Amino acid sequence: MTADLKSKFLQVYQTLKYELIHDPAFEFDDDSRQWVERMLDYNVPGGKLNRGLSVVDSLKLLKGNDELTEEEVFLSCALGWCVEWLQAYFLVLDDIMDESHTRRGQPCWFRIPKVGMIAVNDGVVLRNHIPRILKKHFRGKDYYVDLLDLFNEVEFQTASGQMIDLITTLVGEKDLSKYSLSIHRRIVQFKTAYYSFYLPVACALLMFGENLDDHVQVKDVLVEMGTYFQVQDDYLDCFGAPEVIGKIGTDIEDFKCSWLVVKALELSNEEQKKLLNENYGRKDPGSVAKVKELYHTLNLQGVFEEYESKSHEKLIKSIEAHPSKAVQAVLKSFLGKIYKRQK
Amino acid sequence: MTADLKSKFLQVYQTLKYELIHDPAFEFDDDSRQWVERMLDYNVPGGKLNRGLSVVDSLKLLKGNDELTEEEVFLSCALGWCVEWLQAYFLVLDDIMDESHTRRGQPCWFRIPKVGMIAVNDGVVLRNHIPRILKKHFRGKDYYVDLLDLFNEVEFQTASGQMIDLITTLVGEKDLSKYSLSIHRRIVQFKTAYYSFYLPVACALLMFGENLDDHVQVKDVLVEMGTYFQVQDDYLDCFGAPEVIGKIGTDIEDFKCSWLVVKALELSNEEQKKLLNENYGRKDPGSVAKVKELYHTLNLQGVFEEYESKSHEKLIKSIEAHPSKAVQAVLKSFLGKIYKRQK
Repeated sequence: MTADLKSKFLQVYQTLKYELIHDPAFEFDDDSRQWVERMLDYNVPGGKLNRGLSVVDSLKLLKGNDELTEEEVFLSCALGWCVEWLQAYFLVLDDIMDESHTRRGQPCWFRIPKVGMIAVNDGVVLRNHIPRILKKHFRGKDYYVDLLDLFNEVEFQTASGQMIDLITTLVGEKDLSKYSLSIHRRIVQFKTAYYSFYLPVACALLMFGENLDDHVQVKDVLVEMGTYFQVQDDYLDCFGAPEVIGKIGTDIEDFKCSWLVVKALELSNEEQKKLLNENYGRKDPGSVAKVKELYHTLNLQGVFEEYESKSHEKLIKSIEAHPSKAVQAVLKSFLGKIYKRQK
Repeated sequence: MTADLKSKFLQVYQTLKYELIHDPAFEFDDDSRQWVERMLDYNVPGGKLNRGLSVVDSLKLLKGNDELTEEEVFLSCALGWCVEWLQAYFLVLDDIMDESHTRRGQPCWFRIPKVGMIAVNDGVVLRNHIPRILKKHFRGKDYYVDLLDLFNEVEFQTASGQMIDLITTLVGEKDLSKYSLSIHRRIVQFKTAYYSFYLPVACALLMFGENLDDHVQVKDVLVEMGTYFQVQDDYLDCFGAPEVIGKIGTDIEDFKCSWLVVKALELSNEEQKKLLNENYGRKDPGSVAKVKELYHTLNLQGVFEEYESKSHEKLIKSIEAHPSKAVQAVLKSFLGKIYKRQK
């Protein structure tokens, strides 16, 4: 990805923001316009932008040449921003639910004194910007209704994934044995994989004129890749270098249904299970250290490396089974970006 | 409205609920299915259902006969429920933001001990059910995309109205003079009128085969009616009989940008303004009593009655200017339900 594309992408953000704070469907005044602008700048463009940029990348690979028309660049950037807006919406609300403190190196939006619980409505506003962007720029396209359906379905899946994550943690706090590989897979698939991996590619496929019903295989591969990505995330939370991943992991303290604890439960004898039950989800450093020690004893690093190479192999096989070389290129590009990542 | 229609309407709720907790787009298990079912039963069907039922009523009046086909009854009930779902979504989140305690005679959803902040995501889930219902039952209809656009636009307007309400209260707490008739109108129009008055009729118009672009006049009348409805609400909060309206109003304590305080500010001399500044938004009964006394001194009851009859006259005039007798019937039916209401 070129620096050029990134600066174009950020330029489109400014255009979309301008349109949104001048949307004729609402009577803005200076106060509300300023509020929305500040809220957007704080929450939307500050991430790595990988999800958004990958819409543009994927469209290029599908078309098989590097040259998109001006319109195609703008529209694929706009769809990329819709994905980023969706993410911002979920992060603003997730941080409230998790009582988080920081996000992307700054205080969570709801922690800003004047914001507080207004952040709930700001999350809703972020969500509502997506159909405004789609209507303004895609209303006349053949694939407009498919775009609406796509964003609706993926949002539903993400909210459902978040729901089972929340319920599982509620139940798991009383009974760790409720955590299993199958519930972990289900949470990850719905909460993360659909919107982070499938959605950007699906946007590009729609712009390319494809019918998504013909691309179940692509969806399956991307969901699998998203699952692999989240397992890496769980792994790095404990074993990654804080100075590289940019944060200190707290999954153990937070009682997260992480791939690591699920694997540990699977591999533990009765005594080790008892240790987990007694120490997982405790804030004190002694308990955390005991859990980490058990992870080492069970050689979870080795288990993860095994998982990583097996996953990679399986994904490559699935990708190469796809009839279209262009689609293969899209999928391999995604996989290349995440395989053996350190952050 | 017949008891028959209401029981049919409630029957459709059961059908929609069943479909939602068996939606193939998500892998439900018993826990998540139970959670959603309980959350829906708690939050969706417990209101007066006026908004939802009015979709069915409006369609009947538009068709000019009492006999809808089985399909028309089902579909208009389904759209009515989408309006109720939208309302439930906003109420669940508004209660969190307002730190409310009760709603419809029971604790607010987020006050249920096991729920807490999961209610934020439940609000999101409620919202996501709307496009699921629309897709399942309207995907093949000519007006499907218009329905999606309609719900998206109205949700955007409602969220924007809620935003200016929240910002205005934030600013107003420091400076009561920021409250004015124009900001009150703007809040009410966007936060309440669009979804409560325009949306149900717009749903019926779409089912009837109309293009909403041809019905700006209908929208204007309904938004006006919604404004009148909210002014009544503000009035009843202070002057209504608690045993009739079913709650004890707290707009004065809560620093609400109510029509009454706006009118009071407009009619007050400097001394009276000072009294308002010193007593509005205070929890203590002495302050509340002083504000109420001022409302009496300024004869706000008389001012309201004047407003009520003027509004009614103006609305009747606008309605009778509409070329279609059927549309007139829809609008008059709405107006008849709210004129001089005591609760």
